[in-house]
Amino acid sequence: MKTRIAILGYGNLGKGVEAAVAQNDDLELAAVFTRRDPAGLILRTPGVPVLPASEAPAWAEAVDVLILCGGSATDLPVQTPEYAAMFNVVDSFDTHKKIPEHFAAVDDAARAAGKLALISCGWDPGLFSLARVYANAVLPVGKDETFWGRGVSQGHSDAIRRIEGVLDARQYTVPIPAAVEAVRRGEQPVLTARDKHLRECYVVAAEGADRARIEREIKTMPYYFDEYDTSVTFVTAEELARDHAGLPHGGSVLRGGVTGWEGEHKQTVEFSLKLDSNPEFTGSVLAACARAVHRLSREGQTGCRTILDLPPAALSPVPPEELRAHFL
Amino acid sequence: MKTRIAILGYGNLGKGVEAAVAQNDDLELAAVFTRRDPAGLILRTPGVPVLPASEAPAWAEAVDVLILCGGSATDLPVQTPEYAAMFNVVDSFDTHKKIPEHFAAVDDAARAAGKLALISCGWDPGLFSLARVYANAVLPVGKDETFWGRGVSQGHSDAIRRIEGVLDARQYTVPIPAAVEAVRRGEQPVLTARDKHLRECYVVAAEGADRARIEREIKTMPYYFDEYDTSVTFVTAEELARDHAGLPHGGSVLRGGVTGWEGEHKQTVEFSLKLDSNPEFTGSVLAACARAVHRLSREGQTGCRTILDLPPAALSPVPPEELRAHFL
Repeated sequence: MKTRIAILGYGNLGKGVEAAVAQNDDLELAAVFTRRDPAGLILRTPGVPVLPASEAPAWAEAVDVLILCGGSATDLPVQTPEYAAMFNVVDSFDTHKKIPEHFAAVDDAARAAGKLALISCGWDPGLFSLARVYANAVLPVGKDETFWGRGVSQGHSDAIRRIEGVLDARQYTVPIPAAVEAVRRGEQPVLTARDKHLRECYVVAAEGADRARIEREIKTMPYYFDEYDTSVTFVTAEELARDHAGLPHGGSVLRGGVTGWEGEHKQTVEFSLKLDSNPEFTGSVLAACARAVHRLSREGQTGCRTILDLPPAALSPVPPEELRAHFL
Repeated sequence: MKTRIAILGYGNLGKGVEAAVAQNDDLELAAVFTRRDPAGLILRTPGVPVLPASEAPAWAEAVDVLILCGGSATDLPVQTPEYAAMFNVVDSFDTHKKIPEHFAAVDDAARAAGKLALISCGWDPGLFSLARVYANAVLPVGKDETFWGRGVSQGHSDAIRRIEGVLDARQYTVPIPAAVEAVRRGEQPVLTARDKHLRECYVVAAEGADRARIEREIKTMPYYFDEYDTSVTFVTAEELARDHAGLPHGGSVLRGGVTGWEGEHKQTVEFSLKLDSNPEFTGSVLAACARAVHRLSREGQTGCRTILDLPPAALSPVPPEELRAHFL
């Protein structure tokens, strides 16, 4: 019996989930729900209905897990509790500081409905969180560092697009190799924001726009850019489309710890990702998590969980005895 | 209430567990059991009794988890089922191909006694197994590679010591950078044993021994060395003690996968360890796992588990709401 997955929201992430479901024999796509006009969406998966979000409630019995692919700013805080009252759900809510609040709202809704919900899974939060928890549990004396990139930050790209005279932009977050290497060597250096990452901006300016002003406004933008060394390169719309169309990302979680009675032995744990497509990888994590949610829901679990609560084996399609024989 | 830990076997690993327990406020060492003369053992932890293994049964009520620190060849296959009938236990059984058999024996014993047992935890099997399971669950289309080192292999060092005319030896397993880099780039290369690792041997020969013969016997030794490029360096006993006394190790688990409808996007997941002290790091993993075993045992779980079955949060001393707020 396959796990029947539905998707709400067919943007980059929804498409990534669809592609991930197609790679897994034990998952199948049952439906895609959208708040746009369903007639405008053409899925890659043959024979799967595209329906208005308003029809989702009628599908409660035909779907094992609904994957919510909206944004963290305004969609998920409303959608995840709403749909957790009808479906087992999975989301990738990534506003770190609002996770406790989101968890509480989703937990109430899911518990009342006897459903199971998993929030904030993807890679950060998600796989990076796992790396932090395992590394801290094993090495209680130490220091964590997370590096992101080289990859496209949507938030920073959007911030540049809001500047007057900017038509389009793409911002890459770039980890600084010397900082990564010092952490890898277990030196536990003290690093400022500027020490850890560069920001590379590719900007399409409107004809006649004041490029010096745009560059200055980017480099001095509080929080987004002022604490970093930032490079600004003006390109044409054609160059942006040709050279910067992808959504690569990645990064590393490192923990430098010490063991021994005098802390005499350095021990370094690192978890790294190098991703050609951020939305397809995130979609792949969501698909594996949906498998786990379906499985644990059938065992009678209800309420809200995070990936920190899921037994690793629950994410895998491989039976436990085969995991022990071949993966352990 | 602290988790009361006992150790059976006070070799390198037992000492590593002791040091790890001292780093964790919620763990305490209750006793060390030994098959040697207890009078000969001086612990680092003040006030903890050293007792003959035969007295362990009397401690069943005073110990929450017994960590078995014997060897996988002959100790653990007997000890883990035997002690799982009296204690919650944790071991680091690492004979990969005998894990299913060991699991079954321990599961029977623990279940009958209402105890919880965790086998085969450490870093490989252990944290490396976790990395393999998560990466395979997320990237079902791809290829795994594991590199070990640079680090000391006890098995290979022992194999050299058995050669006539060899007084002592230390063997380092060394990953080949070009192979690691190709896998990191997502190229999914086909790699032989020789492509992946070098073997560096430091050998103390007896006076008058035939060094050419020793070198030849090492390099042609089936399974251990014949499939690898091996270097042999003769050193004095003093040099071996001065330059090769440590037990560093580490390695990397990599999975190169692809996503997208045509497999057009490469996605690479890597988990790496760089360890100054293999036994202290392994001891640290065992200590964190003992915390989880105690916790899950109090929830009523019995039988045998592996680290693949443990919710990650169970290994951490940090309460779930704090994990969500600060680690997710």
